[in-house]
Amino acid sequence: MITPPSPDAQAAARNRLAALAIPTGALGRLGELAVWWSSVRGETTPAPPAHVRAVVFAGDHGVAAHGVSAYPSAVTAAMVRGFVAGVAGVSVLARQHDVSLRVLDLGVDADFPDLDPALGAYKIRRGTEPIHLKDAMTVDETHRAIEAGRQIAAEEIAAGADLLIGGDMGIGNTTTAVALIAGALGLPAEDVVGRGTGIDDQALAVKTDVLATALQRAGDRVADPVELLAALGSPDLAAQAAFISAAAEAGVPVLLDGVISVAAATVAERLTPGVAPWLAAGHRSTEQAQWRALEALGLAPLVDFDLRLGEGSGAVAAVPMVRSAALLLAQMARLDELL
Amino acid sequence: MITPPSPDAQAAARNRLAALAIPTGALGRLGELAVWWSSVRGETTPAPPAHVRAVVFAGDHGVAAHGVSAYPSAVTAAMVRGFVAGVAGVSVLARQHDVSLRVLDLGVDADFPDLDPALGAYKIRRGTEPIHLKDAMTVDETHRAIEAGRQIAAEEIAAGADLLIGGDMGIGNTTTAVALIAGALGLPAEDVVGRGTGIDDQALAVKTDVLATALQRAGDRVADPVELLAALGSPDLAAQAAFISAAAEAGVPVLLDGVISVAAATVAERLTPGVAPWLAAGHRSTEQAQWRALEALGLAPLVDFDLRLGEGSGAVAAVPMVRSAALLLAQMARLDELL
Repeated sequence: MITPPSPDAQAAARNRLAALAIPTGALGRLGELAVWWSSVRGETTPAPPAHVRAVVFAGDHGVAAHGVSAYPSAVTAAMVRGFVAGVAGVSVLARQHDVSLRVLDLGVDADFPDLDPALGAYKIRRGTEPIHLKDAMTVDETHRAIEAGRQIAAEEIAAGADLLIGGDMGIGNTTTAVALIAGALGLPAEDVVGRGTGIDDQALAVKTDVLATALQRAGDRVADPVELLAALGSPDLAAQAAFISAAAEAGVPVLLDGVISVAAATVAERLTPGVAPWLAAGHRSTEQAQWRALEALGLAPLVDFDLRLGEGSGAVAAVPMVRSAALLLAQMARLDELL
Repeated sequence: MITPPSPDAQAAARNRLAALAIPTGALGRLGELAVWWSSVRGETTPAPPAHVRAVVFAGDHGVAAHGVSAYPSAVTAAMVRGFVAGVAGVSVLARQHDVSLRVLDLGVDADFPDLDPALGAYKIRRGTEPIHLKDAMTVDETHRAIEAGRQIAAEEIAAGADLLIGGDMGIGNTTTAVALIAGALGLPAEDVVGRGTGIDDQALAVKTDVLATALQRAGDRVADPVELLAALGSPDLAAQAAFISAAAEAGVPVLLDGVISVAAATVAERLTPGVAPWLAAGHRSTEQAQWRALEALGLAPLVDFDLRLGEGSGAVAAVPMVRSAALLLAQMARLDELL
């Protein structure tokens, strides 16, 4: 059961925005974002987000071995080590913007005996099955991944989060994400497929075939979010979907990243209807499925700089915009105060 | 005489970018921006901009009394007081991003006897003449405004600036800016006119007429940048153009704002050819003249959030992106370090 953001705070913020000493609408997207932030914080002029916490959900995807990605699965484990060492793209951006960053192995096809065991505390399985051939994981594993995501959100909220971000790392994850979007929105493979990390025309044709076969195989089961996740998803995507649902249930807003995070939000809206008003879209992905899914959620992205790094990086890069929006609404003068 | 940014640093930055543990091109615009920052700083992995200094050039525009703006000229002086009090939009953003902000009255049609005299240290005149009827200012005033802009840049550079931003405040300034762009690029009024602070269809028709008449009146004089500024410009625009030229001559990069700042850059390129490689474009304006002028300069904006506040705010809002670009290039791991 999800309580909507405060309509009173939203109305009060909208009134204040209209009275500022600026031409009508001159703050553009920052004005809309400020009103959203007021609504989710339940105050007219809330403080900007000071405790932004990002979680990167890592996992491997069985389809990666079937010609849909430009990179081998081994890169997933290497990148997990990059997060731990603080040298991944999102690590750099998180330090810059004072965002706490946590990486969790939900389903990487490798183990990390030399690293902190907390990394694998919520591990469901090693990799997934190739979704065009069989279900990605069992329904029981899906329920466990969902429970993990809810638990992770609870931990981040208990740590004081006022804004949450979910990222994803896993070779093959755009195939899984667009399969979930296509399944949830009833779109054909051609309408959601994209080049992910940068595949060529041949791999794009393979990816489209894999997606079409996977969607046909899943059939009507896509109508149920748990069955959808079991058939076409992965532990990392299931956990991120539940993470978003749990945040919205607790009244904590979420800033979305690219196509993976928006796929998770699309499933979250199915798991717990009413999630969308608690979300803002960070950046515009290069993946068409993200645009379709954002539109279905009623969201528009804040920034567009052709970023396609994944990892939650587009959302973390957009954090200063959320802070700007809140600060502008709170600190700018009203025209009647200046004249 | 302008020395181009370092080709060696540019090449070294490009090589490092290509070796990072990310899919090719995955940093999108941030990758291009990082290479630019390396080139203008002359190092492979320079520190991010730490001493960003913004100057708001304020002035009134005689055309404002002729139906081209949604606001009366009195708003210019009120907003100058807003900058001084730190409650304008750009004031809030500058505090957020640790950008030093200075407002200077180059040509406001009011005096400020109760404020610090430094505000008017470079004042050229009160307001300009309406450009569709006569020259905005004399050639002598234009030369003085240019000298003021050069002096202001020198002061900001002496204060330690590693990145400069020019903003503008003045009712009627979009009319002046698009007249300069049209004059410099040889475009007709219809191809540059826009809604500024939000005028209706009737005012848009008036603005187009005023522009067409002004351009016709200026005639061939637009070929000379000083004559162009005298005929169609203003002290604030002339000073900002010279500010940009002087920065590029001193090898200090400039982050551009919206249509006003890009008009100044367009004139700067005429005053001192070779300015453009020292510039980056902060945000995409809602004014079509800005898109035309950026294209002519070979620049593409970093962010687009429908902001139309002026004051340099779009550039200041884009400062964290420049910092992100520099940090990513310097701190991310190369793929060969992770595998």
